[in-house]
Amino acid sequence: MADSSRIYTAALIVIGDEILSGRTHDKNIAQVATWLGVQGIRLAEVRVVADVTAAIVEAVNTLRARNDYLFTTGGIGPTHDDITVDAVSEAFGVDVIVHPEARAILEGYYETRGGLTDARLRMARVPEGAELIPNRYTGAPGIRFDNVFLMAGVPQITAGMLDALSGTLEGGAPLLSETIGCWVHESEIAELLRETEKTHPNCQIGSYPFWREGKTGANFVIRSVDAEDLAACSRALMAGLEAIDRPAFPGGI
Amino acid sequence: MADSSRIYTAALIVIGDEILSGRTHDKNIAQVATWLGVQGIRLAEVRVVADVTAAIVEAVNTLRARNDYLFTTGGIGPTHDDITVDAVSEAFGVDVIVHPEARAILEGYYETRGGLTDARLRMARVPEGAELIPNRYTGAPGIRFDNVFLMAGVPQITAGMLDALSGTLEGGAPLLSETIGCWVHESEIAELLRETEKTHPNCQIGSYPFWREGKTGANFVIRSVDAEDLAACSRALMAGLEAIDRPAFPGGI
Repeated sequence: MADSSRIYTAALIVIGDEILSGRTHDKNIAQVATWLGVQGIRLAEVRVVADVTAAIVEAVNTLRARNDYLFTTGGIGPTHDDITVDAVSEAFGVDVIVHPEARAILEGYYETRGGLTDARLRMARVPEGAELIPNRYTGAPGIRFDNVFLMAGVPQITAGMLDALSGTLEGGAPLLSETIGCWVHESEIAELLRETEKTHPNCQIGSYPFWREGKTGANFVIRSVDAEDLAACSRALMAGLEAIDRPAFPGGI
Repeated sequence: MADSSRIYTAALIVIGDEILSGRTHDKNIAQVATWLGVQGIRLAEVRVVADVTAAIVEAVNTLRARNDYLFTTGGIGPTHDDITVDAVSEAFGVDVIVHPEARAILEGYYETRGGLTDARLRMARVPEGAELIPNRYTGAPGIRFDNVFLMAGVPQITAGMLDALSGTLEGGAPLLSETIGCWVHESEIAELLRETEKTHPNCQIGSYPFWREGKTGANFVIRSVDAEDLAACSRALMAGLEAIDRPAFPGGI
């Protein structure tokens, strides 16, 4: 059962040269972050690393030790640049084996698609002792080993794997948030933000400026695990904005 | 003058709770990565960290030591959650001062916009000894200290700061790339990719599968600092795909 007073954290490692070259825009950070929030788990840190074993091993060992959970995306496909399973096995000091159930899943999936070749069989390799995470799209499963979850790099497939994990991980009280938008330079109300946060110690306020339609505005996101504190802090901030003739837009702009 | 035989690397730290909460989709990783590529500098690693001083200090000190350049985005605005300057100063063990030129820029910018308040003056704070990076949009400059470049979090402003830095950083030979697309399951041609890469040791081949229009395909990105090697490797891969009746699309699908 979830312990609502404890904060559960997770880290994410995005593995792939395609993100570091700028060729592919990452979509997994926001997707994993949002999903974790619903599970009552906070994404505490993210690293994007190259397809280089030593870089993955370093990140895995640092991040799994200081977070409740570690997720990785990318590098579990059939090609030579897919080295996540090998790197995670090395990080834990365990062997890579072919998982019998993963092999059976892939045999079934490829039965009508040209058969299970050596390259495809790579997708059944796991750190010895790992469990599988179902993939309803392409057969090749995700992998859970200890507190580490190896997910696909293709965002749609990652989404399916996250669905399969929903509700299975212990989390704490979800971090609640309210957003208030305002057509204001954030520098005009910096003192108001600071004071409002100080008088509501269970809340954090983030300030996110933007330009739209040639105008400057900002959204203020108030976060708390306590719904009443959150509501009180939001009311205080709205009152503060209105007191200086700056209409506040609940829900953000 | 650039030493074309040496590989120059950079790291990026994306600072901000809004990315880790999933609220904001990061756009700076791809933007900085692409810009660095043009400068002949490789983005070697990225970390996304929370608005927490200790987390920023740890990332700054690790990444600046093992890369030629370190970029940060976010946390240099006027509000209480903007702590990047303080954290970078702490990482280097130097004081935070108000930069006279930054102060003058902000005085000019805010002359007709309500004046330079204490909150706005925060944006003139720099690690002692730092230089400024021009910001043609909102006055508040970016900051260069040693091999660390502090940029805005708002992507349009970051873009302007990158423009201002274009051509000023020493880099090596740019990493060239060619993309070849093919309607093929990457698992079908994993062996071809592995062999082609092995016989072209100056090239790396990345394989990026996708689904579109209900069909499976992949783009193969060949990278090299040598244009001739790159062309030879691309030709070999295209010939290999056509030998198994899989038409190759130069430029990708």
